[in-house]
Amino acid sequence: MTVSPITFYFDFSSPYAYLASTQIEAIAARYGRDVEWVPVLLGPVFAATGARPLIEQPLKGDYLLIDVPRTARYLGVPYRHPDVFPVATYQAARVLIGLQREQPDQAVPWLHRCFAAYFTHNRNIAELPVLQALAAEQGLPVEAVERYTGDATIKAQLKANVDRALQAGMCGAPYIVVDEQPFWGADRLPQLEHWLATGGF
Amino acid sequence: MTVSPITFYFDFSSPYAYLASTQIEAIAARYGRDVEWVPVLLGPVFAATGARPLIEQPLKGDYLLIDVPRTARYLGVPYRHPDVFPVATYQAARVLIGLQREQPDQAVPWLHRCFAAYFTHNRNIAELPVLQALAAEQGLPVEAVERYTGDATIKAQLKANVDRALQAGMCGAPYIVVDEQPFWGADRLPQLEHWLATGGF
Repeated sequence: MTVSPITFYFDFSSPYAYLASTQIEAIAARYGRDVEWVPVLLGPVFAATGARPLIEQPLKGDYLLIDVPRTARYLGVPYRHPDVFPVATYQAARVLIGLQREQPDQAVPWLHRCFAAYFTHNRNIAELPVLQALAAEQGLPVEAVERYTGDATIKAQLKANVDRALQAGMCGAPYIVVDEQPFWGADRLPQLEHWLATGGF
Repeated sequence: MTVSPITFYFDFSSPYAYLASTQIEAIAARYGRDVEWVPVLLGPVFAATGARPLIEQPLKGDYLLIDVPRTARYLGVPYRHPDVFPVATYQAARVLIGLQREQPDQAVPWLHRCFAAYFTHNRNIAELPVLQALAAEQGLPVEAVERYTGDATIKAQLKANVDRALQAGMCGAPYIVVDEQPFWGADRLPQLEHWLATGGF
């Protein structure tokens, strides 16, 4: 019997998606599931819900700066709030999609590398030279970065990812779907795991 | 040595505040803390953050209707989504403040009764006759409901509660503060408990 994967919708600029990205593979493995990583852009999601980035909202922005580092400590995950936050992530996402197509073994290492670069090493993943350096550090051909970021079919795939996420009800990041059951937020991982353990509750 | 209480800011119309209200006393008791219940109104909080009620937001409203009952099942807490949601809660809050002043032993039973009436028995706690029936069921003098809801000093106290909550950074409900450390949301109770257990992390 094949079981469906855990679909993980995310934007590279979401600290809660970063935190969840460090946990989801271990959870999936415990229940014999794969993780399907779906990079999207939060901009269109916010446009759909009428929200703005948390950091730009009075009170919520201040709370985020307390909550994210504390949640990282709670999970035992390194965190360093980026000096530039949030950032545009369509280029990092396009590179991921390019790798998912052409070098799938390199895709997951790339996404963890991007998250870590941004949320622990304060490297601005909106900048093409930073992405090129990250590619080099991963042993990827540096020219692939510009090839992927400029590829019209990859652009279209990223847009299709956003459409698919909205169709699935995405209202923030991370948005994780297992067996058509949606879980929004790093804080829903315990419920998600309970769902996997019990087959639904 | 006296330890400071856990301050629980809430609006009676928040399902997440209801869920957390069923858990917070047991957590507090495990660490020798009291709970200070502070009723507020989410309207002014939303005005401060620029948010709207979740249920009115595209996608987030749909998600709430999945997430709240599921979280209730996860916690083993009864839940029945109210037909009228959200509702105005200033009258229920004023009665609570009146009891906190004049009959403190009746205050906590009242707040649990209001939450349960609204979120498990589908009774519209915005309506004065419902509050009067709830008072009678608790053995309180029914006349106290109108006396409390019409009392100018109680109105002023509710407004002061809101000001205090905003000063403390409240950006949604429940908003729980322990030793000046804020925790927003029923989903932060495990972190709050870890904070109490470890003295901060």
